[in-house]
Amino acid sequence: MNAKHINFLKNSVGADNVYDDDAHLTAYCYDATKNRFKPDAVIFPRNEEDVSKILKYCNENKIAVVPRGAGSGFTGGSLPANGGIILAFEKHMNKILEIDMQNLVAVVQPGVINKDLQKAAEAKGLFYPPDPASQDYCTIGGNVSENAGGMRAAKYGITKDYVMALRAVLPNGEIIRAGKRTIKDVAGYNTAGILIASEGTLAVITEITLKLIAKPKMSETAMGIFDSVDEAMNAVYKTMAGGVVPVAMEFLDNLSIRAVEEKFHKGLSVDAGAILITEVDGNSKDDLSRQLDLIEAAFKENGCTNFKRAKDKQESDDIWFARRNVSQAITIYGNKKLNEDITVPRSKLPELLKKIGEVAQEHALKVPCFGHTGDGNVHTNVMVEDGNDKAQLENGQKAIEKIFKIAVDLGGTLSGEHGIGLSKAPFMHLAFSEAEMNLFRTVKKAFDPNNILNPGKMGL
Amino acid sequence: MNAKHINFLKNSVGADNVYDDDAHLTAYCYDATKNRFKPDAVIFPRNEEDVSKILKYCNENKIAVVPRGAGSGFTGGSLPANGGIILAFEKHMNKILEIDMQNLVAVVQPGVINKDLQKAAEAKGLFYPPDPASQDYCTIGGNVSENAGGMRAAKYGITKDYVMALRAVLPNGEIIRAGKRTIKDVAGYNTAGILIASEGTLAVITEITLKLIAKPKMSETAMGIFDSVDEAMNAVYKTMAGGVVPVAMEFLDNLSIRAVEEKFHKGLSVDAGAILITEVDGNSKDDLSRQLDLIEAAFKENGCTNFKRAKDKQESDDIWFARRNVSQAITIYGNKKLNEDITVPRSKLPELLKKIGEVAQEHALKVPCFGHTGDGNVHTNVMVEDGNDKAQLENGQKAIEKIFKIAVDLGGTLSGEHGIGLSKAPFMHLAFSEAEMNLFRTVKKAFDPNNILNPGKMGL
Repeated sequence: MNAKHINFLKNSVGADNVYDDDAHLTAYCYDATKNRFKPDAVIFPRNEEDVSKILKYCNENKIAVVPRGAGSGFTGGSLPANGGIILAFEKHMNKILEIDMQNLVAVVQPGVINKDLQKAAEAKGLFYPPDPASQDYCTIGGNVSENAGGMRAAKYGITKDYVMALRAVLPNGEIIRAGKRTIKDVAGYNTAGILIASEGTLAVITEITLKLIAKPKMSETAMGIFDSVDEAMNAVYKTMAGGVVPVAMEFLDNLSIRAVEEKFHKGLSVDAGAILITEVDGNSKDDLSRQLDLIEAAFKENGCTNFKRAKDKQESDDIWFARRNVSQAITIYGNKKLNEDITVPRSKLPELLKKIGEVAQEHALKVPCFGHTGDGNVHTNVMVEDGNDKAQLENGQKAIEKIFKIAVDLGGTLSGEHGIGLSKAPFMHLAFSEAEMNLFRTVKKAFDPNNILNPGKMGL
Repeated sequence: MNAKHINFLKNSVGADNVYDDDAHLTAYCYDATKNRFKPDAVIFPRNEEDVSKILKYCNENKIAVVPRGAGSGFTGGSLPANGGIILAFEKHMNKILEIDMQNLVAVVQPGVINKDLQKAAEAKGLFYPPDPASQDYCTIGGNVSENAGGMRAAKYGITKDYVMALRAVLPNGEIIRAGKRTIKDVAGYNTAGILIASEGTLAVITEITLKLIAKPKMSETAMGIFDSVDEAMNAVYKTMAGGVVPVAMEFLDNLSIRAVEEKFHKGLSVDAGAILITEVDGNSKDDLSRQLDLIEAAFKENGCTNFKRAKDKQESDDIWFARRNVSQAITIYGNKKLNEDITVPRSKLPELLKKIGEVAQEHALKVPCFGHTGDGNVHTNVMVEDGNDKAQLENGQKAIEKIFKIAVDLGGTLSGEHGIGLSKAPFMHLAFSEAEMNLFRTVKKAFDPNNILNPGKMGL
């Protein structure tokens, strides 16, 4: 990009919305991967028309454009790996446009923070379930682009299950609508379906219409302690196959428990093989008790040695403490965490965890695992003691590759939540055939023939 | 197609799976639109490899291929409008391959009948909710290709909400997999998302992995009678905005009620402006009563003059009788039914029905309406007294076009369930901009550059 480009863009969308000073370029060069790529400019579009003008110009001038929410992604999806423009929605396009009580729908701009939408819905007795761990700062635009999940997915599904309609701008500047504010809509191709999870590589999403549901009146938390991971994993899938669908079914293995205890001294049993934390919700005490009874029975049939129901908010918070703080706690095992979010069919969890244990042993690494076992999603953390030691890092990366292969071989996926971005691009061949990769490339080319939208991502 | 083609195909997939005799061509030339288009051949593939061989050959020889389920579609989606080959799955590729109790998943071939899957799931205490009216004979392959809905959509969603993974063959013969047997999977483009509802124009689906859920233990039926359609439509959306989500919220207007009564003499009140039939489900009597109490209150606040809860199976069947037989009954108004399945956001139902009434009056036509108001989906039947009278038919078609425009202007869609196919292709311009149509054409070309798959459909 040169001064001519910057001037044109300033004239188009306002001088105070286009920046190429070092402070801005530095502020928008990172994400949660801690990798750094400086963009050539940062633009804050005011509205959809601005996005259209910017894309049209960039398409004609072959300038890369990277849409960015909060930069909270774990795979580099919002990093300008090939330079170009960062399109940031946090300044202007960050409004909840409507909470439609009559049709149970929210209409938002991409820069709206997930938690703000949750709160706005709850203020009206409604519920927006997707709750990625970064919910306090991640944006809905990013959530849609990555198809974000969260803890409630086993019961309530993920972002794609709530997207009813989108507005988006194609690389050539054309504005399209996809979907309707209706449950049923089968006219035309399901364009929204392929824009979701496309990591900003096909179009720039400018407005999102989301389904809301009635807020369940109450919830309860419980915890089960198991001697072994194997028993806990059996308990997970057998509980859910038994017909009860908890909101959350979270898991910590022994290394994770030990880390939390060492760091926070909460009185956790450091000899436990695994903990399962579960939450049920509903509209009556009876319903909640019925669900917890079924869970307790399934847990105990599968080796649970201690089942504790939280009596009040404080006890519930205490139970959740370990899960909420585990990600930070496990840094005691090393200064470099290679954290992945592989997912397998629930019934494969016991085998997955067994095999991860074997890889850890083989590579003499600590690999604490925790996560959303209710939907088969395990956050697998290969801890490298000294990330600055090249040999150690390589050893960790080799272990990761083996773990990916194990997940795929068990019918699972490279990523349940984080996407592919840059970090997982080298592993796409493990999961997709050449025909499948070619199809992805064909789709990419159909939407974005000049490859200006978030180039270099997803291994395409 | 010529004898060389037929011979090649017979050699490829077996002589007893390829037919071009008149009996077969006639048997596969129709669908529920009653339009007729003769194919050049009918092929019964034995497996995915057969589909691959057939497509590769047809792609190289530019022969049209039309995948067909049961031919129960209402818009000509499975009609060979440009000749070519009918690919029929009912003979070999009609197996339920697996009901996976551990992960709550079914794996089926495209030719499986919807009801057979529902029954197989229920035999194991599980539930496959999508229930199109043609469930007794329509196939899952067709359901996925059209993204079929049904009566339970307001609570349980539609086909796309249950598709976890697909296997499919591209026009060039390449086999692809899309999705996983996991709730979360964000690796690569969501190819399954765009194959759903693509009406067989992008790829041929050869295997479908579907989510199953636990079967609710019980259900109850109730009926509300209203003086006017307007009051009933208000009752629908206010009930659901109030936080109760019935399984079904079905509607009959006065013309529909009169038709059922005239034909079947069931003692329905022919002066009623509208009837709403509702069904709730759950796991306890208390929960069902709570839901019905909320519905009764919302109905009565909105002009319901009579609310009746079914006391037993017989009363429930009696209540459902009118709804189940209305489609047949309204033929008393004419021998040609132009039935459409427009859908609007629920809060727009009162306005929609008012405006349809105005169009009916303007064109001196009877337009009985009924359907799935719980999700805003209204089956709108423009009845032409004598469909052989060209002037009358044209008058009906003009009314239909106005009704489509009304639905789209209210934020609704041309089709909630039936798809576009041939019948609605002329109306695509009412709903989609030139940019949107161009994008559809680009997507079609990306998947199917030689336009061999179900050509001429969806207005592309």
